[in-house]
Amino acid sequence: MTKTGKQPAETAVEQNVYKIFPNDLNSKHTVFGGLVMGLCDRTALIVAERHSGRSCVTVAVDSLTFLAPAHTGETLVVKASVNRSWRSSMEIGVHVAAENSFQGDRRHVVSAYLTFVALDDDGKPTEVPPVLPKTAVEHRRFVAADERRAARLAIGRP
Amino acid sequence: MTKTGKQPAETAVEQNVYKIFPNDLNSKHTVFGGLVMGLCDRTALIVAERHSGRSCVTVAVDSLTFLAPAHTGETLVVKASVNRSWRSSMEIGVHVAAENSFQGDRRHVVSAYLTFVALDDDGKPTEVPPVLPKTAVEHRRFVAADERRAARLAIGRP
Amino acid sequence: MTKTGKQPAETAVEQNVYKIFPNDLNSKHTVFGGLVMGLCDRTALIVAERHSGRSCVTVAVDSLTFLAPAHTGETLVVKASVNRSWRSSMEIGVHVAAENSFQGDRRHVVSAYLTFVALDDDGKPTEVPPVLPKTAVEHRRFVAADERRAARLAIGRP
Amino acid sequence: MTKTGKQPAETAVEQNVYKIFPNDLNSKHTVFGGLVMGLCDRTALIVAERHSGRSCVTVAVDSLTFLAPAHTGETLVVKASVNRSWRSSMEIGVHVAAENSFQGDRRHVVSAYLTFVALDDDGKPTEVPPVLPKTAVEHRRFVAADERRAARLAIGRP
Amino acid sequence: MTKTGKQPAETAVEQNVYKIFPNDLNSKHTVFGGLVMGLCDRTALIVAERHSGRSCVTVAVDSLTFLAPAHTGETLVVKASVNRSWRSSMEIGVHVAAENSFQGDRRHVVSAYLTFVALDDDGKPTEVPPVLPKTAVEHRRFVAADERRAARLAIGRP
Amino acid sequence: MTKTGKQPAETAVEQNVYKIFPNDLNSKHTVFGGLVMGLCDRTALIVAERHSGRSCVTVAVDSLTFLAPAHTGETLVVKASVNRSWRSSMEIGVHVAAENSFQGDRRHVVSAYLTFVALDDDGKPTEVPPVLPKTAVEHRRFVAADERRAARLAIGRP
Repeated sequence: MTKTGKQPAETAVEQNVYKIFPNDLNSKHTVFGGLVMGLCDRTALIVAERHSGRSCVTVAVDSLTFLAPAHTGETLVVKASVNRSWRSSMEIGVHVAAENSFQGDRRHVVSAYLTFVALDDDGKPTEVPPVLPKTAVEHRRFVAADERRAARLAIGRP
Repeated sequence: MTKTGKQPAETAVEQNVYKIFPNDLNSKHTVFGGLVMGLCDRTALIVAERHSGRSCVTVAVDSLTFLAPAHTGETLVVKASVNRSWRSSMEIGVHVAAENSFQGDRRHVVSAYLTFVALDDDGKPTEVPPVLPKTAVEHRRFVAADERRAARLAIGRP
Repeated sequence: MTKTGKQPAETAVEQNVYKIFPNDLNSKHTVFGGLVMGLCDRTALIVAERHSGRSCVTVAVDSLTFLAPAHTGETLVVKASVNRSWRSSMEIGVHVAAENSFQGDRRHVVSAYLTFVALDDDGKPTEVPPVLPKTAVEHRRFVAADERRAARLAIGRP
Repeated sequence: MTKTGKQPAETAVEQNVYKIFPNDLNSKHTVFGGLVMGLCDRTALIVAERHSGRSCVTVAVDSLTFLAPAHTGETLVVKASVNRSWRSSMEIGVHVAAENSFQGDRRHVVSAYLTFVALDDDGKPTEVPPVLPKTAVEHRRFVAADERRAARLAIGRP
Repeated sequence: MTKTGKQPAETAVEQNVYKIFPNDLNSKHTVFGGLVMGLCDRTALIVAERHSGRSCVTVAVDSLTFLAPAHTGETLVVKASVNRSWRSSMEIGVHVAAENSFQGDRRHVVSAYLTFVALDDDGKPTEVPPVLPKTAVEHRRFVAADERRAARLAIGRP
Repeated sequence: MTKTGKQPAETAVEQNVYKIFPNDLNSKHTVFGGLVMGLCDRTALIVAERHSGRSCVTVAVDSLTFLAPAHTGETLVVKASVNRSWRSSMEIGVHVAAENSFQGDRRHVVSAYLTFVALDDDGKPTEVPPVLPKTAVEHRRFVAADERRAARLAIGRP
C-alpha cells in the first residue's frame, strides 16, 4: 500500500496543557525533569501515531534541553509536530512553554527532538508516509531534521 | 479595579490531548470515569484561571455526561472554554472526544459544565471579568449558561 | 430472571476514608477537585455493583457540589448509597465530609449524584433490581431521585 | 493534661473500600503486595490519629500476613481498630477482605498489626490515652497486644 | 528437577536507590510509611525471583521496623538478600538507609523480613533451591531465619 | 572553597532495580518510554548530587537511545556514573538493562547521557569538583564527554 504524504500541520498537537501541582516538584521546588520528559514523550507519541497510522515506539531522544525552570501554579503548554520521516522512522519536534495563566505570558522552557518507529501488527518496523512540508517553518524543520539524522548516523546512533 | 472583559476564544483550551494507556482502564477495559473527571477538571481550571487572572477552585460539576466509552490506544482530546461569568464565578464548558489516532476519526464521549470561583490572596471569592461573546456559538453558550444557573438557584444549589 | 429488590442499607458504603497527603493539593493548598471526583466515582461504583450484581459504568454526574475546601492532614470520609433504580440505571448519592481526626469534628464538603448503568457480559445495558426503601430517609431519596431524573429527561439528558 | 481513655469502637474504621483496577496488579495478575501494605498503613494511621488526637508515624509492622490473593474486579474492604496503647505508642489491628461485589461474598485476605507513635508539635513522642476495651473481642485483642509487645521487647525490637 | 543451591550474594540487590520528592511525604513532612513498605516489597520480590527462578508472591511481612524518619531531599538506599529457603518459601531481609547525598553520610532507617512463596505455572507453590551461605554474615542470617520461622509457626502463622 | 575531585566509582549508582508491572506498559505491551526516561533522570540526579554535594537540575538529555523493548515481568537494572564535569555542569552516563530475573540473563535496552547543573542556595549555578578518572573505562568516558560537549556547543546548545 502506498502511503499518502501528510503536511505536519495536519497531525500536530497545538496546545497540550498541564497545570503544575505541588506533587510535580523536586526538592528545589521546580518541576521534576522526568515529568517533563514523560510529557514530551506522551505528546510526541500522539503525533507519530497520527502521521503513521500505526502504533509507534520511542527509539531515541536527541537533545532535550531545559532552558529555564518551571514552577508550581504555572501551566505547561506543549506543542509537537512531525519534522521529517524516513523509511520507518519519524522525527517529532516538541516545544514546551511555561505559562503564567494569570497574566498570560509564556516563556520557552524545553525543546526536544524525539525519534519514533512505526510498527506493524507483528511489532516489526513498517513504512511510514512522507512528510510534505508546506510553510517556511515546516521546510526549515524538514531540512534540519535530515542534518540531525546525518550527524547521528555519523556517530553510529540510530 | 475594573476588569476588562474577554472573549471566550482568548482563554479557551483548544486541544488538550491524553493518550489512554492500559493503566487507565477499569475492569470492563474502558476508561475509568474518575480519570476523565479529573482531566475535565484540570483542563477547565486552566481556562478559569486564564479568564479571571486569579487562582480558582471548583465549586460544582453540573451534568457531566458519558455518551460513549473510550478504549485503550485511543487519544482523549479535551476542549474547554468559558461560557459566562457572574460576580465571582464562571461556567466552563468541556467537550471530550476519543480519537482513533491511526484513522483520524473522533467521537464525542463526554460533555460537562463546571463552575469555578476566583479567589483573592486571602482565599476569599473575588470579582471576575465579564465574558464577551462574539461568535454565534459563544452567544448561544452565554445564554444557556444563565438558564442553567437559574435552574440551579431555583433548587437551592450554588 | 426476575431480580429481587434490595434495601439501600444493604449495599451502602458507610465509611470510606482517605487521609489527605501533601501530594493531593492544588496550588491553593486545598484538595484538588479532580481527586475528590475520582474518589466519589470509585466509591459509588462499588455501591452500583453491589446493588446490580453486574459490572457498571458511570453515565452521568449530576450536581457534584463543593460546599467547603478540605485541607492536608484532614481525613475525607465518603458515604454512598443507591437512591433509586430504573430499567438498567441507578442513581447513587454520595456524601463527603472532611474530618479533623485529632478533634473528631467533621464538616460536610461535597454532595454528588451519579448515575450508573449495569452491563451484561456483552457490554450491553441490562436490567437491575428495584430499590426497596424502608427508612424515612431512604423514601425521601427514592422520591427525589425520580424528580431529578424527570428534570434531566426534560432537557434531553440521559 | 490527663487524657481520657477511649473504647476501640469509637475510633475504628469500619469499612474502607478499594475497588481493584488493572493497574494494581503484579505480573501474576493478583494484587501487588505493596499496594495492600500501603492501604493497611493509610487506614491504620487514621485510627491512630483518632485515638491519640495527635499526628502519628508508623514505627513497626508486625506480622502482616497474606492469606489469599485478591484479583482485579474485586473490592478490598479494610477494617482497622486500636488494640492497646502504651505510653506513646499504640497497636492497630487491620483486617482486609476481598469482596466479590457482584455476589456479595467476602474472603479474608490479609491480617496485620501495626505500631504507631504519637508526636507532639516538636515531633517528639508524646503520651496517648489509654484504650478502654468493652466488648469481649476488644478485651481479647487488648490482652493479645500486650503479649505481642512482650515478645517483641524480648528480642530487642520496639 | 533438582534445583542447584545459590549463595545469597549471587541474587542480592546491593543498592536500589530512590530520591525522596515532596510528593512522598506525609503531613509531618517525613516519608510516608506505606511508600517505604512498597519499596521494600518491590525490591525483595526481585531477590525472591532471582533465587527461585519463579514468579513469587509476598505471604508475610515480619517485623518491618522504622528506626528513624527520612526526609525530602534524602535518598533511600535499599539492600535486600535471601536469608534462607524452605520447601516453597524464602525469607528475604531488607535494609533501608537514608543517604544525605550531598555529604555522603547514611543512617539506617528501616529493617524488614519478608516471606515469599514461589509459584509454578498454575499458580501453585513450587519447590525452591536451597540457600548456600558462605560468609559469616550469610551464615548468621541463615540461622536466625530459621529461628524466626520456628517462632512464627509456634504461634500459628505461615 | 576548592573542591576536591572525586573518582566516578565513588559516586556511581551500581544497580538501581525496577520491577516492571502491568501498569508501566503502553498499548503495545512494552514499557512506556516516558517511564524509562523518568527512571534515568531520577537515577542520574543522585549521581550528580553525590558528585557535586549540591542540589542539581537537569539541563539537557543527549542521545537517550532505546535499543530494545522491555516487557512486563522483567526487571530494569539502571547504572549511572559521572563522566566529566566542567565549571558548574556534569555529564552523567546511564545504562539500562532488562533482566529476566528467572533466568538471570540481561540485555542492554537504553543508553543515555544527561547534563546536570549544580545550584547554590540562591538557585544560581555553582562550581563543581573535577572528575578524576582512574580506570581505563573512566578515562575513555572522560574524553568522550568532552567531545560530545564540543559538538553540542558547536551547534549552539548548552
